[in-house]
Amino acid sequence: MMASSTAVGVEALGATLVTPWAVQVFIPASALIGIAFAIVQWSIVAKIPVRSGAATDGGYSLIADEGGVEDASVIAKVAEIQEAISLGAVSFLTTEYWYLAIFMTLFTAIIFLFLGSVDGFGREWKPCDRSDPTGKMCAPGTAVALFSAVAFALGALTSTLSGFLGMKIATYANARTTLQARKGVGAAFAVAFRSGSVMGFLLTANGLLVLFLAILGFKQYFGDDWVGLYEAIAGYGLGGSSVALFGRVGGGIYTKAADVGADLVGKVERNIPEDDPRNPAVIADNVGDNVGDIAGMGADLFGSFAESTCAALVISSLSSMGTDLDFTAMSFPLLITGSGILVCLLTTLVATDIQVVDTIKDIEPSLKRQLLVSSVLMTPTILAVSYLCLPAQFSIVVAGHEDKVVKNWYMFFCVAAGLWAGLIIGYVTEYFTSHQYSPVRDVADACRTGAATNIIFGLALGYKSVIIPVFAIAGAVYLSYTLAAMYGIACAALGMLSTLSTCLAIDAYGPISDNAGGIAEMAEMGPRIREKTDALDSAGNTTAAIGKGFAIGSAALVSLALFGAYVNRAGISEVNVIAPKEFVGLIVGAMLPYWFSAMTMKSVGKAALAMVEEVRRQFNTIAGLMEGTVKPDYKKCVMISTDASLREMIAPGCLVMLTPIIAGYLFGVYTLAGILAGALVSGVQMAISASNTGGAWDNAKKYIEAGNTEQARALGRKGSACHKAAVIGDTVGDPLKDTSGPSLNILIKLMAVESLVFAPFFKEHGGVLFGRRS
Amino acid sequence: MMASSTAVGVEALGATLVTPWAVQVFIPASALIGIAFAIVQWSIVAKIPVRSGAATDGGYSLIADEGGVEDASVIAKVAEIQEAISLGAVSFLTTEYWYLAIFMTLFTAIIFLFLGSVDGFGREWKPCDRSDPTGKMCAPGTAVALFSAVAFALGALTSTLSGFLGMKIATYANARTTLQARKGVGAAFAVAFRSGSVMGFLLTANGLLVLFLAILGFKQYFGDDWVGLYEAIAGYGLGGSSVALFGRVGGGIYTKAADVGADLVGKVERNIPEDDPRNPAVIADNVGDNVGDIAGMGADLFGSFAESTCAALVISSLSSMGTDLDFTAMSFPLLITGSGILVCLLTTLVATDIQVVDTIKDIEPSLKRQLLVSSVLMTPTILAVSYLCLPAQFSIVVAGHEDKVVKNWYMFFCVAAGLWAGLIIGYVTEYFTSHQYSPVRDVADACRTGAATNIIFGLALGYKSVIIPVFAIAGAVYLSYTLAAMYGIACAALGMLSTLSTCLAIDAYGPISDNAGGIAEMAEMGPRIREKTDALDSAGNTTAAIGKGFAIGSAALVSLALFGAYVNRAGISEVNVIAPKEFVGLIVGAMLPYWFSAMTMKSVGKAALAMVEEVRRQFNTIAGLMEGTVKPDYKKCVMISTDASLREMIAPGCLVMLTPIIAGYLFGVYTLAGILAGALVSGVQMAISASNTGGAWDNAKKYIEAGNTEQARALGRKGSACHKAAVIGDTVGDPLKDTSGPSLNILIKLMAVESLVFAPFFKEHGGVLFGRRS
Repeated sequence: MMASSTAVGVEALGATLVTPWAVQVFIPASALIGIAFAIVQWSIVAKIPVRSGAATDGGYSLIADEGGVEDASVIAKVAEIQEAISLGAVSFLTTEYWYLAIFMTLFTAIIFLFLGSVDGFGREWKPCDRSDPTGKMCAPGTAVALFSAVAFALGALTSTLSGFLGMKIATYANARTTLQARKGVGAAFAVAFRSGSVMGFLLTANGLLVLFLAILGFKQYFGDDWVGLYEAIAGYGLGGSSVALFGRVGGGIYTKAADVGADLVGKVERNIPEDDPRNPAVIADNVGDNVGDIAGMGADLFGSFAESTCAALVISSLSSMGTDLDFTAMSFPLLITGSGILVCLLTTLVATDIQVVDTIKDIEPSLKRQLLVSSVLMTPTILAVSYLCLPAQFSIVVAGHEDKVVKNWYMFFCVAAGLWAGLIIGYVTEYFTSHQYSPVRDVADACRTGAATNIIFGLALGYKSVIIPVFAIAGAVYLSYTLAAMYGIACAALGMLSTLSTCLAIDAYGPISDNAGGIAEMAEMGPRIREKTDALDSAGNTTAAIGKGFAIGSAALVSLALFGAYVNRAGISEVNVIAPKEFVGLIVGAMLPYWFSAMTMKSVGKAALAMVEEVRRQFNTIAGLMEGTVKPDYKKCVMISTDASLREMIAPGCLVMLTPIIAGYLFGVYTLAGILAGALVSGVQMAISASNTGGAWDNAKKYIEAGNTEQARALGRKGSACHKAAVIGDTVGDPLKDTSGPSLNILIKLMAVESLVFAPFFKEHGGVLFGRRS
Repeated sequence: MMASSTAVGVEALGATLVTPWAVQVFIPASALIGIAFAIVQWSIVAKIPVRSGAATDGGYSLIADEGGVEDASVIAKVAEIQEAISLGAVSFLTTEYWYLAIFMTLFTAIIFLFLGSVDGFGREWKPCDRSDPTGKMCAPGTAVALFSAVAFALGALTSTLSGFLGMKIATYANARTTLQARKGVGAAFAVAFRSGSVMGFLLTANGLLVLFLAILGFKQYFGDDWVGLYEAIAGYGLGGSSVALFGRVGGGIYTKAADVGADLVGKVERNIPEDDPRNPAVIADNVGDNVGDIAGMGADLFGSFAESTCAALVISSLSSMGTDLDFTAMSFPLLITGSGILVCLLTTLVATDIQVVDTIKDIEPSLKRQLLVSSVLMTPTILAVSYLCLPAQFSIVVAGHEDKVVKNWYMFFCVAAGLWAGLIIGYVTEYFTSHQYSPVRDVADACRTGAATNIIFGLALGYKSVIIPVFAIAGAVYLSYTLAAMYGIACAALGMLSTLSTCLAIDAYGPISDNAGGIAEMAEMGPRIREKTDALDSAGNTTAAIGKGFAIGSAALVSLALFGAYVNRAGISEVNVIAPKEFVGLIVGAMLPYWFSAMTMKSVGKAALAMVEEVRRQFNTIAGLMEGTVKPDYKKCVMISTDASLREMIAPGCLVMLTPIIAGYLFGVYTLAGILAGALVSGVQMAISASNTGGAWDNAKKYIEAGNTEQARALGRKGSACHKAAVIGDTVGDPLKDTSGPSLNILIKLMAVESLVFAPFFKEHGGVLFGRRS
């Protein structure tokens, strides 16, 4: 159905230097190497015993660092806590998967029915373009619909599997990190970081492998109809992103309901420290770190990877690479990801084997070095892939304009622009959220005059932190679009995600360390252990903020690429915002992030209030709880978080999933295009500012608590008026940085990929209210 | 220079029923009636004496209501406080006017130089369009530049004068409202409301009169070159809006620095009530209400009126009304405003003479009735003006498309769409910010678990409150654009502003009542008086929020109309956001409200901290201050607010004024168009949510304080933990609702009108970096 706009008659100059055969070996090989590397890392972590019987083997009792804690009893306690966290996480995920399964089944059916209806469930191969003398045949719409549905299911399953494995690894690693902290900070760091990289490599490699196998499999049916083939493959991105909706939004509500609920009663009312085992919500809080920050973040970035790859593939299938049936060139997006896995593997070795962490001071530089090293190594790799795997010149379809002629080295700049924009975003995020620098210290300083000024300064910081990332994104967009139109933008997004394994590793490191600290506190290990886990955790806070920066930056580029692919597929040649349909879409689209955030913020608030009631109830009714002689009912709190998060997810989920369908059907493809553009440009700002504001408040609080500078000591330590003001900021920031902010990534990406998948349907049947043409 | 796109060859059907002569009588007559009405209201207010000697004449001492306060001493005190507030306000305004004068002189020169440079300061009349057989002559570019500069200065002067008069009236009325409160709530209401309407009518009538006289004057030179004439007149809008920058941003920082500073020490640290005379910042706080909410709000809405009228005039000068030299039809925007003044006059009589306020319960309904009555009366008036003053059919230029043929009754729907969208926005704002309804009560309820949940729920409320207003704006845009392209949108904006006199009256009522309450507290009048002024103030809070809703709603429509006029004048036929130049502009534009808000929020924070230091210093060093035996140094605080607000205004002011010039010059007209669209759609959301969040926090606090319901009483009264949490929310909301939120109106309007005025320059010289064409 897209034949009319394919690049007929444009000659590609020169063949690619790498044969299709080599591509078919390299891509799965890089994925398998990634998986093997993950297994090796896992086996190293698994050697650490978490059973009291095995403790003496490790010789821990000989280590002076331990703070005089009884060995066997501590390890038993640690194992018990880990068990509770792991059970809680699995219980949430299995409940979530039930909902997910129902949703996926329904949506698979919808995809098939909507897309199949476009050509009336025809089952005949037809000429792609009647005016084309070669008489190329295109697959029937029903087949595209069917394979889209299959790709959707595959994407959803792969994302689910990756999230589940990541969560299992994280809950497996947290207790081990705690125990290793007794050996020293270096040993503990190694466990947390290795476990993070297991998650990072598994997710990227799995995603790549399944996608590649799906392409090979679908090709058996589609033959030379690559347009149909890659349109069907776009379902993979939608599947991955739909799971991210559950992971990010549901997980985000879960984690913050538990966290806010635990803090409000524990820290504020009862004056007991964070992660105190007497707090009934403490296990739920630790579970939340895993389901929100591990499974949710993983699903989000998996979605970005799947979507940007699919956007690039859809656009290039319409280009001369598609019409020339140049399989090597078509696989360029996958080759970037594959070589990225190998680069990240080398980068990981820098942290685990070359510049090993010995002291607390080494932690943050080591994590930051990962970002820089992976970007530096990736740059020449991109250049090599661009020269080896692309023809010297090819052409890209630009809707409503002449085809764009692109030289292969242009693509180096496109991919590298994304990669380096990501690095800039990462460093800017660090500057605004780490208490090493003045922005967070200013916020901490504002606590002198109370919570109100803390909030005002924190909000202002978040707004300000948007400026440079937006310029970085704008620069990458301008460069890559000028060089290679929408294909350039899709490849810029892939460039930002090319170091995904490393980004995910340092990102997953955060919640693992956070949990490790929680376990140390709950197992009542000595203050010296706790000091080490705190240092690990503090670095993790900053890397979590950086990870969020990457996630939103890539989401922006991905959404734009998807938007471009949608525009192509819907046959729109321009999105003119001074036309009423588009402008109305634009302003309503810019409103959607507010509507969505209103829902998610309120959801966290409501769920947290429910948690507060339960925690208060337990403190008031369970005798001996405050004294620590009786254990609280952790399971009840886990259940409340699980139920609340899944219930509260429905409304925002419907907003995301239904908006493109309703807008496309009622108001047509132009208004929908306006909505996508509006949601994108408004959502990016809100997401960045929310996540940095929250991160800054969190670290302003930690800055006061740590008291490492004269300024910080002047503000008073835990329990002072300043600290209380800082805790209020931290609590407000929790839903901003972990729920509503990151959930916006999903809003903008999912609406865009859904529009892309359903574009033929809207083109055919859409616009019943506003008429068919602009 | 615009001749190439004028509506050559389109025939208008039918003549207008009203002659140009009648128009030339009606417009100044309606303005003069408005001014006369304002003078009558003023003279009624002026009859109330504020001199102790005159007190016995009024016979106040006979009134039982007075609470046993000594008459003469109280009146002397009231007079003294009023004097201090008035002096403070004048001192701020005169300092501000110095800055303003420098800025205006510079900018007048810039306008002349930039616009004059477009055709090399040519001084010859040239044929407008060489292909036009009639050989119509157009004024030289230098003349357009010169008259633009003159119009700019006129707009600035008129706005300054209106703001100054409004402020004088408000400071004149506040003490009189306090004194009348001893007679009863009805008498006090009448003073505050009448004074508000003085401001409302003076501003609208002055604006209309000066604009109309300028058009008549300029016409003497321009003759039949109406395109040149109305392009020059557009400077009037820019002038009005530039003053609004000073008023809204400078005034906004002033008022909140004083308010937040006074509250942080007074309420939080010293535990003394609001407006306590012992607080050194209390006079500055009351001054702030006048310079921010009266002069600032007035300048903002004056800017909207001037801009939307200019946008409509520029667009219609290019239409068949302009080419046919149909003066009556061209004056349609002014006729709407003129008849609006008469409608508002009748509406005012409803409150002052027909349904008079007797008890506290009548206040809010009476103010809300004003909105409804004015809209209901205005609707048939619009219909009549549309039929009488427009030809049965005319055509509007649409850049890059065929001319749009418009019937006169279409314009009724355009103007009415704006009017009624404004009413919807007003009512939605009331729903989300009045403590009569559940949203604010839910926020108050969230205070049970502390300040953090209060903030979370408040932010969520603000986000949610955006939904319906945006749909209302989108609906008005779609309808009016579909009927009459960009002319329709400009007229919709005028429709929303057609009841401006009434809106300003109920808006100015708020700060007058607020001040009246402050004066009662400071003069230590009895609690029964204070109860009445509190009731007046509480209603004023809601109307202030409604006023802000109107201001942002009209700003959105005005900006879009200006955007449309800019696009016309810059010769752009489409703003295609999937082209890189426009998209880059769009995303950077959507970022600007964040950058701007970061500056204004931080400014308030910094200025408030300076105020806090001073207030603390006075409490610590002035013996007897806390005991009330010694007076604080009010002047010092007034000076701090004045200096801080003007200093802190510079950076955000530069951002607004320089962005269009830099973007237009370096990146060209397309990127600038993207920036305007992005800033508009993103800024609207932020402005609405900021202003409603702040309003809701303020009223949630008032709801708890008043304790009028069982729920409110359960939350505890002043001084309870809940109340303290509510005060934190209120303090955070102050800069959101009174500084950063409303300032965003200025950002989006001023950038748009500046782009419009400089469009010929950008078209000629712009785009040095991105190249001239998209």
